[in-house]
Amino acid sequence: MIPFQFDFLQQDAITGARLGRISCRRGQIATPTFMPVGTQGTVKGMLPETLKEIGAQIILANTYHLYLRPGHELIRQMGGLHKFMNWDKPILTDSGGFQVFSLGDLCKIEEEGVSFQSHLDGSRHLLTPELSIEIQQALGSDIVMVFDECIPHPSPRSYVADSTARSARWAMRCRDVLPAGGESALFGIVQGGMERDLRRQSAEELQEIGVEGYALGGLSVGEEAEVMYEMMEYALPLLPQGQPRYVMGVGTPQNLIEGIARGCDMFDCVMPTRNARNGSLFSRYGKLNIKQARYRDDQQPIDPTCNCYVCRNYSRAYLRHLYQSNEVLAAVLNTHHNLYYYQRLMAGARQAIAENRFDQYRADFYRDLETQQ
Amino acid sequence: MIPFQFDFLQQDAITGARLGRISCRRGQIATPTFMPVGTQGTVKGMLPETLKEIGAQIILANTYHLYLRPGHELIRQMGGLHKFMNWDKPILTDSGGFQVFSLGDLCKIEEEGVSFQSHLDGSRHLLTPELSIEIQQALGSDIVMVFDECIPHPSPRSYVADSTARSARWAMRCRDVLPAGGESALFGIVQGGMERDLRRQSAEELQEIGVEGYALGGLSVGEEAEVMYEMMEYALPLLPQGQPRYVMGVGTPQNLIEGIARGCDMFDCVMPTRNARNGSLFSRYGKLNIKQARYRDDQQPIDPTCNCYVCRNYSRAYLRHLYQSNEVLAAVLNTHHNLYYYQRLMAGARQAIAENRFDQYRADFYRDLETQQ
Repeated sequence: MIPFQFDFLQQDAITGARLGRISCRRGQIATPTFMPVGTQGTVKGMLPETLKEIGAQIILANTYHLYLRPGHELIRQMGGLHKFMNWDKPILTDSGGFQVFSLGDLCKIEEEGVSFQSHLDGSRHLLTPELSIEIQQALGSDIVMVFDECIPHPSPRSYVADSTARSARWAMRCRDVLPAGGESALFGIVQGGMERDLRRQSAEELQEIGVEGYALGGLSVGEEAEVMYEMMEYALPLLPQGQPRYVMGVGTPQNLIEGIARGCDMFDCVMPTRNARNGSLFSRYGKLNIKQARYRDDQQPIDPTCNCYVCRNYSRAYLRHLYQSNEVLAAVLNTHHNLYYYQRLMAGARQAIAENRFDQYRADFYRDLETQQ
Repeated sequence: MIPFQFDFLQQDAITGARLGRISCRRGQIATPTFMPVGTQGTVKGMLPETLKEIGAQIILANTYHLYLRPGHELIRQMGGLHKFMNWDKPILTDSGGFQVFSLGDLCKIEEEGVSFQSHLDGSRHLLTPELSIEIQQALGSDIVMVFDECIPHPSPRSYVADSTARSARWAMRCRDVLPAGGESALFGIVQGGMERDLRRQSAEELQEIGVEGYALGGLSVGEEAEVMYEMMEYALPLLPQGQPRYVMGVGTPQNLIEGIARGCDMFDCVMPTRNARNGSLFSRYGKLNIKQARYRDDQQPIDPTCNCYVCRNYSRAYLRHLYQSNEVLAAVLNTHHNLYYYQRLMAGARQAIAENRFDQYRADFYRDLETQQ
């Protein structure tokens, strides 16, 4: 068995950007990396082969959704999530905590875990750290996240303190049932809201527990981007250099660039896939809303500098027609393009870090964004 | 320019099945052939490259829909439908007649044409034979259908007689504006309802006009399958041997097998694509409804004898999960499989005719259908 390993390969000369490589039993992941979100055992509208073609190295799957439907025991019986969904590269699973709070009804937090009602059928469930790990292992996850509470923002300091302490106790219980050295790596999640001392305390407690990687949770929850960047700047250096750093649920292309500049290695966000289904398309020169009448007879591709399958073969006029006609292919092509945009952004960042010019890459990124189309 | 040509290559030894080849400027079409339906400038959920991979040689596009949205002038301006939708093989366009009656509101038939209200925005339009041809030419259609009325079933004989005579006059007007020898072939449509003498009269009138191919219209409109087969048996021999014969809007796999046995060369139907989106999947051993609870933990592919991408990579359990979760990929994978099934059925038929064993092919088809899964 190939053990989980992170190689910190290079530090950018000017910024905090890091070049790295994760190795695990299902392959290698060049970092910084963006993980497309495959909530229900599919990255919406994408074939697994197409995800690979555009450079996706790892995807994220949601424990909450798969636990409720089709059920983790069914997926275990079917040979695990990789086989079920025909994806043989690494999968990171979240712990279910975030969705329990955002989607479940009548959530009640106790020391044991969180009780909630399913948003699908109203059935009652109790999700504990131990059950979260059991589900993630049944799925066959390569990177398992500790069960935690994503603290709402803003919250009173006393709430943040209590929640952060409880999340640390939950993280310990996760480590107890998923010891190091097995088939799945365990990542801890630094909480602490916008309180620096609580973030520090959380980071220290996780390091005492000992995990294979560290995430920042509770960011991109409604705070200003500057506040998020400041918290990244504060919290990321509290983590060990030699292990991967993941900022959960982040974010926009700008967020990714700024996160990389501050030393973050891994990101996930529904933005490229969800925006695609709403007709919001990324390009080097800013976002396009393909619904707009201005694209009615526009023969250009979404992004004239993009080399993706969609930009090589389809006009804005056609994509607008598909969107207006509510065609399945609109979601398929728009998602393909947006994910390609994200993957290209990350590949460019890795190249730039390798060549010690990430600062210039970031400057060019902003210059292009501000260029009038 | 390559002129439109049909080569009648071989007649099956026992049945009326024919092997043929259509040649036109955008490629060759081995017949019998099934044309996937791409109503709004896309075969729902399918990439053009995937359509080619599974053996589609020609697709059908709908004049009514494209005229209303995005508009034929826009598509002309974008370089034609082939370029607009990224499909470089032949396209057959219907005349719009059928959809005007089935989708339009307040239809009124006059000698000049049919006035109707758009089902999209209520706008009023008059579709004439001349406009239908103009639209189909703006789209860049390879095979243009004459404008006709698809007679409702049942209808009084007097209505059938009047409508059939008017459709013949409309066919003449179509030929007048689309003479033989140009870039697009013109196919006539034999009407006459379930009245044999009117079918004969219609077939004769079309031959006097002179068209590059002949369709049977007004079938699969609610009559018993046996009635349809009898009408095929009666009407197909009225048509010239050396030109392609197309039965419009047909049909089920059984209908295709029976149509081929009676000498039909071309078919189109929304069944494989529409059924796919409703979770109804074709297999050698009959249809599966993937929604059913029996497939919850079924690790088999849809059809264990099918070699398509979907059957090689996904279980019934996964496809059921996607369907139940209302995922985009459900439509994508189900459509892929169903169209592959239809294409494989036709490829097998062509091979069987070439080897003078279509009768056995048909017998095997029914034997498999009746096999318990």
